[in-house]
Amino acid sequence: MTDTKKPLALTLGDPAGIGPDISLLAFAARRREHIPPFVLLGDPEVLRDRARALDLQISIEVVDEAGTAPALFAETLPVLPISVGAPVVAGHPDQALAPAIQHAIEQAVALVSAGAANAVVTNPISKAVLYRSGFAFPGHTEFLANLAGLEPADAVMMLAADTLRVVPTTIHIPLAQVPEALTEALILKTLATTSRGLSRYFGLAAPRIAVTGLNPHAGEDGTLGHEEVDIIIPAIEAARRQGLDVAGPYPADALFHGEARKTYDVAVAMYHDQALIPFKTLAFDTGVNVTLGLPFIRTSPDHGTAFALAGTGKARPQSLIEALRLAESMSAHVERAP
Amino acid sequence: MTDTKKPLALTLGDPAGIGPDISLLAFAARRREHIPPFVLLGDPEVLRDRARALDLQISIEVVDEAGTAPALFAETLPVLPISVGAPVVAGHPDQALAPAIQHAIEQAVALVSAGAANAVVTNPISKAVLYRSGFAFPGHTEFLANLAGLEPADAVMMLAADTLRVVPTTIHIPLAQVPEALTEALILKTLATTSRGLSRYFGLAAPRIAVTGLNPHAGEDGTLGHEEVDIIIPAIEAARRQGLDVAGPYPADALFHGEARKTYDVAVAMYHDQALIPFKTLAFDTGVNVTLGLPFIRTSPDHGTAFALAGTGKARPQSLIEALRLAESMSAHVERAP
Repeated sequence: MTDTKKPLALTLGDPAGIGPDISLLAFAARRREHIPPFVLLGDPEVLRDRARALDLQISIEVVDEAGTAPALFAETLPVLPISVGAPVVAGHPDQALAPAIQHAIEQAVALVSAGAANAVVTNPISKAVLYRSGFAFPGHTEFLANLAGLEPADAVMMLAADTLRVVPTTIHIPLAQVPEALTEALILKTLATTSRGLSRYFGLAAPRIAVTGLNPHAGEDGTLGHEEVDIIIPAIEAARRQGLDVAGPYPADALFHGEARKTYDVAVAMYHDQALIPFKTLAFDTGVNVTLGLPFIRTSPDHGTAFALAGTGKARPQSLIEALRLAESMSAHVERAP
Repeated sequence: MTDTKKPLALTLGDPAGIGPDISLLAFAARRREHIPPFVLLGDPEVLRDRARALDLQISIEVVDEAGTAPALFAETLPVLPISVGAPVVAGHPDQALAPAIQHAIEQAVALVSAGAANAVVTNPISKAVLYRSGFAFPGHTEFLANLAGLEPADAVMMLAADTLRVVPTTIHIPLAQVPEALTEALILKTLATTSRGLSRYFGLAAPRIAVTGLNPHAGEDGTLGHEEVDIIIPAIEAARRQGLDVAGPYPADALFHGEARKTYDVAVAMYHDQALIPFKTLAFDTGVNVTLGLPFIRTSPDHGTAFALAGTGKARPQSLIEALRLAESMSAHVERAP
């Protein structure tokens, strides 16, 4: 069983976005939704202000260590304080908030690395806000890999929902750069990290992986593109030689209807939209973003900061709730393993 | 109202594939499924053989003109004979069948052009079979454009189902060639043809069109690719100046969940998988392929020849049935127009 003496470490994300809103709403729903205890890393004043804006009666308790959070969680929201050091206006991004946003992520990783938290769960950040203040990473995933002393390609992004798990091999690059970015080594590494992650955290002894082609109809034997023949098939064969259960490449458009989804545990796609289109078509509100390949568990809701919804009462916490539950479930699988 | 004295002209497709199977099954279901009368263009002996293989009791009547088909349709399957001139083995593609396959398509176009049929509905063909015998077109769509004296880009492929209509701007080219193939002129032409087609055949006075970006997050203001800024936005603006109701470019992954689909009548995507992934995820068995921009109506089932299923009884006629119904509905909209 998971160590229930430890909380999840939840970062506040961008305080001007909906992170505070959905964190408060998730806490308010903790009993009904069976949400595991978390400690929130962020500014308690921001949370009190946002609770007032949302007309939520929530008792917020500042703690100085994560270990006290689980015992408090039934009654009060435990917060490890990280001062924003600047006024926060819901819906108005401000790069003055960037250091606090970044610090919360670093603190969450420090907690989980020290064994004081079961997993890191992150609220959304705005790359634009962080870029402007010198943040050198395309997003959370790469920043977390760096904090863990890994290369960006060591971290694999997986989208997970009840209906589908899917991994994009390349992520935030222009479509025109996808063909050159795809290499046999990158695909093989993605397959291996994905398989290991599903074994370790999802209780699947031999995860079944289905791989998409890059081109229409998976290239039709090379007549509609050569990457399947030159790169993807060799990567699949190399993965099989390592003992992985990998099938494909399949035409991507035939891989995501109900019958097809029964045949695999995770689909590995070649680029962002190829993975995200079917995922968000099927699970728009309930998807979770999982980072595999890190030395700790990390999940996050599968949406952005939604500045326009911050403080309005319109933000929905469902994806964060799923992210918290999945982090706890992944943690439980690790504890259960021999 | 549609001219019920005229049938739909249904081509047999590749006789070694499931075209004969699903045509027979659709005819057998004509009353229960309210299928409009069609005349089948193909070899009557192939149909009799396949009916035996499938244990279907269907009376097949050879006719010498399409006009007699509707009156016969309640009792017998009317067939305009096109001899295959070679033995047909279900499940075994044979390029000796190519001339008859091609001839049926030409005959169907001749019928509809002469006003003897309301629309062309085509069963699946195998490009590989036709390529080998010198067929110079990437598929049905381009062949039909050529028969109509048009350029390939004049014909626009739309996938249609109850849940979604979607148009890929580029279709059967390698993914690496998509960025260079996308031009403002091509996108504008696609938008105009799509809008006109939905007005004329779907009864939508001012069709609402949503356009995807090419890159992840629709390029994030140029930081993840420049095609949105350079090509797609100018095309959208040009379309609006022509009075079309066009919105976008939107991140493709956010455009296909239930709430988003309520905001448009058709989505125009930039490439094959971007359109086909959401479509087949949502409507795998019931999708219809529609060609817009031709001087006649053409629909087809949204699947291939499925050679492995031919003659086995496992082929499902649902997509062909939807294609027949949609062709009739499109025809009725034209007749109804002032």
